[in-house]
Amino acid sequence: MDLYFSPMACSLATRIALYEAGAEANFLEVDPKTKTVLRDGSDFRAVNPLGLVPTLRTDDGQVLTENAAILQYVADHFPQADLGTSPGIDRSRLHQWLCFIGTELHKGLFIPILDKTAPEEMKAHVLKKNLSRLDYLETYLKGRDYLLDHFSVADAYLVTVINWTMATPPVELAKWPVVKAYHERLRTRPAVARAVAEEFELYKAELARHKAAA
Amino acid sequence: MDLYFSPMACSLATRIALYEAGAEANFLEVDPKTKTVLRDGSDFRAVNPLGLVPTLRTDDGQVLTENAAILQYVADHFPQADLGTSPGIDRSRLHQWLCFIGTELHKGLFIPILDKTAPEEMKAHVLKKNLSRLDYLETYLKGRDYLLDHFSVADAYLVTVINWTMATPPVELAKWPVVKAYHERLRTRPAVARAVAEEFELYKAELARHKAAA
Repeated sequence: MDLYFSPMACSLATRIALYEAGAEANFLEVDPKTKTVLRDGSDFRAVNPLGLVPTLRTDDGQVLTENAAILQYVADHFPQADLGTSPGIDRSRLHQWLCFIGTELHKGLFIPILDKTAPEEMKAHVLKKNLSRLDYLETYLKGRDYLLDHFSVADAYLVTVINWTMATPPVELAKWPVVKAYHERLRTRPAVARAVAEEFELYKAELARHKAAA
Repeated sequence: MDLYFSPMACSLATRIALYEAGAEANFLEVDPKTKTVLRDGSDFRAVNPLGLVPTLRTDDGQVLTENAAILQYVADHFPQADLGTSPGIDRSRLHQWLCFIGTELHKGLFIPILDKTAPEEMKAHVLKKNLSRLDYLETYLKGRDYLLDHFSVADAYLVTVINWTMATPPVELAKWPVVKAYHERLRTRPAVARAVAEEFELYKAELARHKAAA
């Protein structure tokens, strides 16, 4: 399968999931500014008109978009890695956490803060309104190792999003010590450590490329 | 089961799904300002600390939050209504659409526009950045009756979100004629028509209640 990604973007969660599963995949880097696929300079919007990563092309040629859908596809495709859950209430909890991370944390809190073109008034409003989502997470994670009873694709997504606090000084992770400890613990998992280290190098190269082009 | 809802909020999608399934449920109205449960004046945040609807209490007492999770729970719980899909790529497409509606439309576009406390700069930024999501939908829906090959919980969610354009003048639905026709067509489904009519009456009562309390 082909995974279209941008370094340190939310597509990192799928790379983590694939490494956890020991799965083979082609990782195709997309420049987030120009929306070109680095390997051949082609227009990524021909693959996904929204220009959003992650985008996955399955082995039988299906193009799948949206993080929660792709993560669950990977979990289903490599069941031996136990990244998903059995049907029933456990699967509902997985849906719940993927949805919470995607809507409340990723879109509701972090995108406006990370968006370089977003007005300051927007960042201030979002911080005032949505930091409580981290309080909720702090309470929930107390005494737990993972979001579910084992490492799942929801954790791959959460560690990716919490990672962004390195680039968002207004969100001081130290204020949520349980979330901070969760993040530090998960960062030591081999699949997470490898994925973050590899993409951080690519991220630095992306920044250098953008600086040179400016 | 108990469904905590606020009139015309995204919880409408679950009411539609329950009506489609011909299912019994207790609908517990939550005032979105005070977060009290109207029936008994209790604090809704004791049920869901985030104070967000929909929240579902299952018959065996599990409290489930997040729209995508609750909609899929209802689809799984009433399989005869065919509101979900079989496993495999069809289910991935359902995940994809639920995620797209939740992150790109609901959180990314409509919440900032509907939020009365959001600064004007935020609304302008979001309109500039995210109206393209409706272009994407316009292209996709051309020649289709539903998001998948049959009416699903993703349609229940989409019709609910598109409904909000009645209250968001900057999003002129007439500019997306295919989406407009889809919305008008779905609004005539008995379950959708009934759910919208009932909640619109409750919504007017909510507005009157807020006006009286001001």
